[in-house]
Amino acid sequence: MSDHPETPVTPVEAFEPPYYLAVFSTVRTQDQSGYGETNARMEELVKDIPGFLGMDHAQTPGGLGITVGYFRDADALAEWRSHAEHRSAQQRGRADWYERYTLHVAKVERSHGFVRPSG
Amino acid sequence: MSDHPETPVTPVEAFEPPYYLAVFSTVRTQDQSGYGETNARMEELVKDIPGFLGMDHAQTPGGLGITVGYFRDADALAEWRSHAEHRSAQQRGRADWYERYTLHVAKVERSHGFVRPSG
Repeated sequence: MSDHPETPVTPVEAFEPPYYLAVFSTVRTQDQSGYGETNARMEELVKDIPGFLGMDHAQTPGGLGITVGYFRDADALAEWRSHAEHRSAQQRGRADWYERYTLHVAKVERSHGFVRPSG
Repeated sequence: MSDHPETPVTPVEAFEPPYYLAVFSTVRTQDQSGYGETNARMEELVKDIPGFLGMDHAQTPGGLGITVGYFRDADALAEWRSHAEHRSAQQRGRADWYERYTLHVAKVERSHGFVRPSG
């Protein structure tokens, strides 16, 4: 049972390795003007990258945010990394929205998923 | 400036690759009895694993939780994975606390950090 049955929350599935992921852990600044629009635009744009597999995001209120993007291979991730509009958003992020962040790019070697049996 | 200057939020730093990370993305059940105590115990235990580098955690209220653990090498991660008390907590998690989860274990190839210049 969920309070929001129209938007069920589901983590990105476990794909067949190898694939790539990028962990982006952030602490944001007080002034987030423009962040929401840009973030929504990026979420749309990344879907057009061939080899994009999905994205998980969690945000502790007033605390850490973690976004994990999943990609079929290093080329797909490189294409997203160098996308012109994404690069411009990255610059804006460093100028305005992020107090701190860390990015870790990694090759997945093993994965698995669990779904609670219904009933 | 922070509302909680006594507990500054800082993402785990970018270490020198290679190192390992495990992304654990979860959707929790309604009944979380016992979760807090076990989670706190696990956060203590993992610090004793040689090669444990740190952990990032974010939780969207009523939504996705993401925990990322960082380890110096695959052996360190394997030691944590097979730790008896951790295994028992994993079983309890599948029985009681998790509706769904996905685990991705990956080798970091590239990383970097950003800290806003002060002033």
